[in-house]
Order: sequence, then structure tokens, then C-alpha cells
Amino acid sequence: MTQILDDAHLATPAGSGHRLGSHRVLEPKGALPQAAWKLDNAPRAYDNEMLCRVETLNIDSASFKQISDACGGDPAAIGAHILATVNERGKQHNPVTGSGGMFIGQVLEIGAAHEPRDGVTTGDRIASLVSLTLTPLRLDAIESVDVTTGQVRVRGTAILFESGIYARLPDDLPVDVALAVLDVAGAPAQVRRLAKPGQTVCVIGADGKSGLLSCAQAREQVGPTGCVVGIVPHAGTPASKLLLEQDYVDTLIVADARDALAVLAATPAAMPELADLVVNCVNVAGTELASILCCKDGGVVYFFSMSTSFTAAALGAEGVGKDIMMMVGNGYAKGHAAVALQTLRDHPALKDYFAARYAAR
Amino acid sequence: MTQILDDAHLATPAGSGHRLGSHRVLEPKGALPQAAWKLDNAPRAYDNEMLCRVETLNIDSASFKQISDACGGDPAAIGAHILATVNERGKQHNPVTGSGGMFIGQVLEIGAAHEPRDGVTTGDRIASLVSLTLTPLRLDAIESVDVTTGQVRVRGTAILFESGIYARLPDDLPVDVALAVLDVAGAPAQVRRLAKPGQTVCVIGADGKSGLLSCAQAREQVGPTGCVVGIVPHAGTPASKLLLEQDYVDTLIVADARDALAVLAATPAAMPELADLVVNCVNVAGTELASILCCKDGGVVYFFSMSTSFTAAALGAEGVGKDIMMMVGNGYAKGHAAVALQTLRDHPALKDYFAARYAAR
Repeated sequence: MTQILDDAHLATPAGSGHRLGSHRVLEPKGALPQAAWKLDNAPRAYDNEMLCRVETLNIDSASFKQISDACGGDPAAIGAHILATVNERGKQHNPVTGSGGMFIGQVLEIGAAHEPRDGVTTGDRIASLVSLTLTPLRLDAIESVDVTTGQVRVRGTAILFESGIYARLPDDLPVDVALAVLDVAGAPAQVRRLAKPGQTVCVIGADGKSGLLSCAQAREQVGPTGCVVGIVPHAGTPASKLLLEQDYVDTLIVADARDALAVLAATPAAMPELADLVVNCVNVAGTELASILCCKDGGVVYFFSMSTSFTAAALGAEGVGKDIMMMVGNGYAKGHAAVALQTLRDHPALKDYFAARYAAR
Repeated sequence: MTQILDDAHLATPAGSGHRLGSHRVLEPKGALPQAAWKLDNAPRAYDNEMLCRVETLNIDSASFKQISDACGGDPAAIGAHILATVNERGKQHNPVTGSGGMFIGQVLEIGAAHEPRDGVTTGDRIASLVSLTLTPLRLDAIESVDVTTGQVRVRGTAILFESGIYARLPDDLPVDVALAVLDVAGAPAQVRRLAKPGQTVCVIGADGKSGLLSCAQAREQVGPTGCVVGIVPHAGTPASKLLLEQDYVDTLIVADARDALAVLAATPAAMPELADLVVNCVNVAGTELASILCCKDGGVVYFFSMSTSFTAAALGAEGVGKDIMMMVGNGYAKGHAAVALQTLRDHPALKDYFAARYAAR
């Protein structure tokens, strides 16, 4: 911490910055941090900011692949590449992919006017839940690069704005398992809000991280009189077996969700009146229509997948004359990190699955 | 009608087709009509279809501009181009833009198993409210092309599936005014559902067709204790004057909705507690963040604009830590055509504005 406290920037008090961080934008003036080319990464918290020591960068997979390809997969070259980007832009914002990632670190300083989320205090280890593309970041050194996970150990500091979201890392879960859950925390949190006792919930892409957590949460919410239907591309995978063995789903439909007619053909047996709530958790494009067709008139489709096309959803529902509410998957909901982590704790079999799959080897 | 009734296809009864029209798909087999390359446009209604005589095609503006550019703006060449597309594909589905439009016509035949919407009977004039990209269409002739409006007078037939939506053309409004309203019917219909007495509603892009109808409808719903705020790019336009003169809005913010910080700076005066409901009606990209920032925590953003980016909305809300519900603008809602037309009738000043602007000259 000494090198930070010695920083010349600390000579004068900083006052309060803009809650969205626009006071940290150097170029172009007037932009918001995500849209900006360059941020002020000075390691000093304004009154409404939080300063963190950064231990690990989780570079998002699209960005890491691009960097790795550009560097021939060489860890040292990848590290130098990341250092150059952060030095140039004051944030880890890949100019090619436009994406970032998140960081893990420790809270160094909480500004007097910053109201911490999640009961976080100085010294706590946290995961940032806003993108690195809008997070002021300063790196002193790259310590190591794990080319298999996209995790980069660093020495440096980051700033979280008043509007920034983050979660305290739990003591009872391996860091990598917690990260895997926090990455998709919005999905189970929204299912908890939207699913009601006795309803039919259909989760498309039920075998992925967000899908598994959504099914487990849906099961809790709909109760014994409700019904949970999962749609997965393959039977017999560990995730598909888990869904059935643990009764997270009543029925598993094995179908390619891009084939809307195939999905529709499977619905009469699995959910004769269709679903009150459809949760789309797939990671491929072209599944909007299947999602719409699984939803009953007056129901809700929650598109958590980032592969969703806005126009395909809007025009798809119109094209088949479906009067349904379609929701854009907001990555944030109040308390979403706590709900997601608790979902895992409440379901030991799911926790074991995540531990086997995501804990660092 | 004679040439139709003589058609060889009429020799045998057709039975019922798929409610989504997949029985009409010729290439590739198994696709749904919108995704298909070629449809069966035989002018004969299956039991659950409706056959219409087509009078006018309203080619969507992106498609018409592309065709017109390719044809040097020559009406005859444009007509030949459209005829060639329809002959090749069995639908007016522009292969370059991927878009279609809608048709105006007269109901010729309603299949025995087709339950007509909107009380429509044989002989009624209707507007199709599903895209031409999924509508089986056969053209006998192009009669004229209006290069200023993108309207094409034709002789031909079209099929509406069981799932297809359409509205009877009203007797009391010019066809072009009715079309202008029906084109955006989803917006006022959803505002009617979502806005509640006493709420603050913010309409971004308040000066366009959907924006004006949304403001008028919001005014009705929020009542005297509520507040309607419009955001427009320019003051002093006829639409902006109309909004203020008719009290459709309490306050007009003049700002570029792509400049999120400028919009945010105007909110304390116009809506100190932000909006319960934000309706995005703009026709430019990059306004997701402004929409999110205008919405209070726990509120709703309704993205009616087809320029909306799904990821910009999802990541934008997460980036600023806003717990809001974001809705994809569904072009269809039960009774939407009736609500939209009635909104116009209930507001004579709005009706005059639409008549002056959209009625055929």
C-alpha cells in the first residue's frame, strides 16, 4: 500500500466525482467511462468512489482469445499486450473486441460519501461486477498469465464509482466457483422474482451455468404444484443428468433451440398450456422464435442470453401474433449476487457440480 | 375474382395448414415462413387461412430505398424489380435489406377454421400487420409505383395464416393516416397498459409518430396528478408545439438522446425523481443509456425503437447499477390497432396533425 499512499495525487482532497464516473474521463471530454477512449486511473478515491488493490483480472473470453491469437499464445507477450492497453487507456478495454472482463481485489479505501454495497468494508476481498471497459485501472506489474482460464495475476489498483456494482467474495466457496456464479447472477435473481407458485417455467439452455441456477431457483419458486421444463441440446451430459436426478426439472426436452418448429413439436407433451415464464440462457444466436413459441399468451420471456437479437425478438412475436412481455436480461438486480450464491449453497449437488467444473485445478 | 376461382389449386379441398404457415414453405423444408427462401403463394385459402385481394403494397422504407437506388429511381424499373422478387420467392422479401412491409387489400375468402380477428368479414378492407417477409404473395400486375411514399398499387393475392394479424381499415380516417397509425400501434397500446395514474412517464423521441401517440395515451393514463415528459431533438417543430399546446406533455426536454449526460443533466428540473416508465421511440442508434438513466430504480423502460441494441441495453443498465425492467417492444398486443386508432380519434389536434402530414396528397 505504501506506493499508493505516497502518490502525489493525494496532496489535495478530491471531493465528490460524478456518480457515473464521467469526472474520470480524459478523452473525449463529456463521454461516459465506457464510451471513453481514456480514463484517469489515479489511485486515489474521490469521496464517492472506492479504491481497490487488484489481484486478478478475469479477461472476458472473446477479448482474451483475440489477445492470445495476436500474441501467438505466449503468456509474456499477452501480459505485455494487456499492460500496454491499460497504460494507454487507463482501463482494460480491448479496442478490437470492445469488451473487458472483471477484477478480483481487496478494498483499500472507501470514500466518505460512498455508500458501500453488500456491507463491504476496507480489507474485504471483492469481485467487481461492472465491466473493466468502464473501470479506471492502473497496473504496476503483470505477475502471471493463465492462458487456459484467461486469468491474469497483477499488481495494481482500480476505482469503483458510486454507481459501480461489486460483491464480497464468500468465505465458503472457492474463488473460481464464486466467480462462475457471480458472472451470471442476474439470471437466478430474476427467476426468483418472476416465477410464482404453481406456474410453468421453461428454461432454454438449461445445462449451462445460468440455466442450471435458473432451473434450481425456478423449482424453489413454482413449488410442488408448478412445473419446470428444461430445453437442452444433448441428453446424457453431466448437466442434463443433474437436472433430472435433482428434480430441478420435471421434463427435459432435447432439441436444438434454433429449430423453432422442433421445439414447438415437443411442447404439447411437456407443457400443454405452454409456459408462464420462459428463460432464455443459450449462448448461440437464433433462438428468439423458439422462446416466443414456448410462451403462453400473456406470459413473460426473459432473454438473459447476450446472443439475443432485439429485432428478431420484436418482429418474431409480431410475426406469430403473440401478446407476451419480452424482457431484456439486465445483468444487475438488487441483491443478485447474494441470491445467486445462496442458490448454489442451497443445492449441494449443484455446488458439487460447479466445484468439479469451475474450481481452479 | 374469376381468375382466382378458376385456379387449378381449387380442385381439391386443402384442409388445415400449420397455424404459423410452415405448410406454405417450399425452400428450405422445415423452415418457418419468415426464414424461408420461397413460399407457396397459391391463391387458395387452407381451412385456417384467409385469402385477400391485394391493392397496395407498403414497402418498408429501408427496402424501398435500396430498390429505388438499384433502379435509378425509375418507377417502371422498381415495379419490375418487385415483380421479379415476388415471382422468385412467393413473397416481397428484399434479399438485400431482409425487410418487407405490409399490404392493404380486401378479404376474399375466410377458411372455415380461421377465426377472424377484429370482427373482419369477407369484403372488408384490411391492412396486414405482419411483415410481407412472411406473407405468401402472388402478383398479376404492378399498376403504379409512388416513389415518394414507397406505395405500390398492384393486382394480386395474399394469404394470412391463422397466427397472422391484421386490422380492418376504419371508415372515418383516410387510408394513409390509418396506415401511419397502424404501423406503430404497439406503442400507444403498451403505454395504455403500463402507465398508471399519478406516475411520471418519459417519452424519448416524443415528436415522431409513435412518440406523439404515446404521449397522448400517457397523458390519459397518468391523469392530472401524473406527469408526462417528452424528449425531442428540436424545439419549435410543429410536433413539439403540438405536444405543448395540447398538454400531451408537461415538460419538453430539448436534447440529443444519444448524449446520455446531456439528458441526465436535464432531468432534475423536469422529473426530480426520474420516470416510472420510459418509452423509447427514437429512430437513431445509441439512446439506450439515456433511456436507462431517465428511469427510476424499480421502473420500466419500454424500448419500442427498432434501433435498440440488446447488448447496449443489458450492459448499460449493469454498468450504471440500475435495477429496472427493460422491455423489448413487441409490435403486437391484443387490440392494439383499435387502441391506436382510438387514440387518434380522441385527440382531434393529433388527428389533424396526422391528416396534414400523412394523408395522400
